[in-house]
Amino acid sequence: MLNKFSLKTNQRDQMIEVTQVIQDYISKLNIHDGAVIVYCPHTTAGITINENADPDVKQDMIRRFDEVYPWHHKLDRHMEGNTAAHMKASTVGASQFCLITEGRLLLGTWQGIYFCEFDGPRTRSYVKVF
Amino acid sequence: MLNKFSLKTNQRDQMIEVTQVIQDYISKLNIHDGAVIVYCPHTTAGITINENADPDVKQDMIRRFDEVYPWHHKLDRHMEGNTAAHMKASTVGASQFCLITEGRLLLGTWQGIYFCEFDGPRTRSYVKVF
Amino acid sequence: MLNKFSLKTNQRDQMIEVTQVIQDYISKLNIHDGAVIVYCPHTTAGITINENADPDVKQDMIRRFDEVYPWHHKLDRHMEGNTAAHMKASTVGASQFCLITEGRLLLGTWQGIYFCEFDGPRTRSYVKVF
Repeated sequence: MLNKFSLKTNQRDQMIEVTQVIQDYISKLNIHDGAVIVYCPHTTAGITINENADPDVKQDMIRRFDEVYPWHHKLDRHMEGNTAAHMKASTVGASQFCLITEGRLLLGTWQGIYFCEFDGPRTRSYVKVF
Repeated sequence: MLNKFSLKTNQRDQMIEVTQVIQDYISKLNIHDGAVIVYCPHTTAGITINENADPDVKQDMIRRFDEVYPWHHKLDRHMEGNTAAHMKASTVGASQFCLITEGRLLLGTWQGIYFCEFDGPRTRSYVKVF
Repeated sequence: MLNKFSLKTNQRDQMIEVTQVIQDYISKLNIHDGAVIVYCPHTTAGITINENADPDVKQDMIRRFDEVYPWHHKLDRHMEGNTAAHMKASTVGASQFCLITEGRLLLGTWQGIYFCEFDGPRTRSYVKVF
């Protein structure tokens, strides 16, 4: 079952946790066991699974990705000037696979699912498939 | 259903779009809804989903990956000398998951599926599974 | 079918091949065709598919990842001091998808499945789902 959700980002780089939205949907559909794919249909954003506790991790990650893939690069030829965002998107990936067991997302204690904006602010969508 | 396809690369680093090949196969098999895994059975190549419009994005990405993972590195011990290609392969990943809905790949407007060669030229294969 | 396995790592960064463990389990369950997800429920570890032959590739990869994401970084704010491990985890990804055909993992000749420790030593777990 395919379902499209949208969100609004308000910074150029931003990690927005979507774990609860997905869990709520699983609970509403009463899915007991299975799997979910969280898919990002954009090329300057992605999905990752990472730490859900200390918000400093997100800030560190955004800054570290920006150091590895700096926004401005004199050799970039892409007219839109957002090659760095495309790099980050391919690095974290367009989708993540999660398991559902006994009605709950099977995530590690510290794991959360994140929509990663790399060229905001924009209105973005992501897709959940069971 | 598993199907193996092959392609020939002609550069060391190259992103070859395979979206249409996969779409044609889905259409031929008349698959209405489902999912496809595009899998790369090589360790110096990978699969990614990224921009399908401006070809400069591919060129920028190849150059940027090469800056982060330079081909020559005096500390590399791997005899074949292609450690950089292994790094890039693990960074983009060995496979991508795509959805099929109403007979079409559910990709974002600007998304294309790419076979990424990181140690060509070679004859390579990839696998599509529905 | 979901199954949880555990392993002990003994270094900060370590790539441990788990291909045979997964193949043995597939053989034991007598699964002929299908797919397996190898999932890592930790945020400072991940799963990747890469070279299974020359062990120097693993050592080069660990060193290269450490250069791109250095352990110590004066701007990191995360109290645990392991932001680099979170970066590496999101770069390789939390899971890998593998195909099973005729009772065997459909891997390329040189491909192995690796549990990647990025903040050991620890006792870790991973999940296999068919």
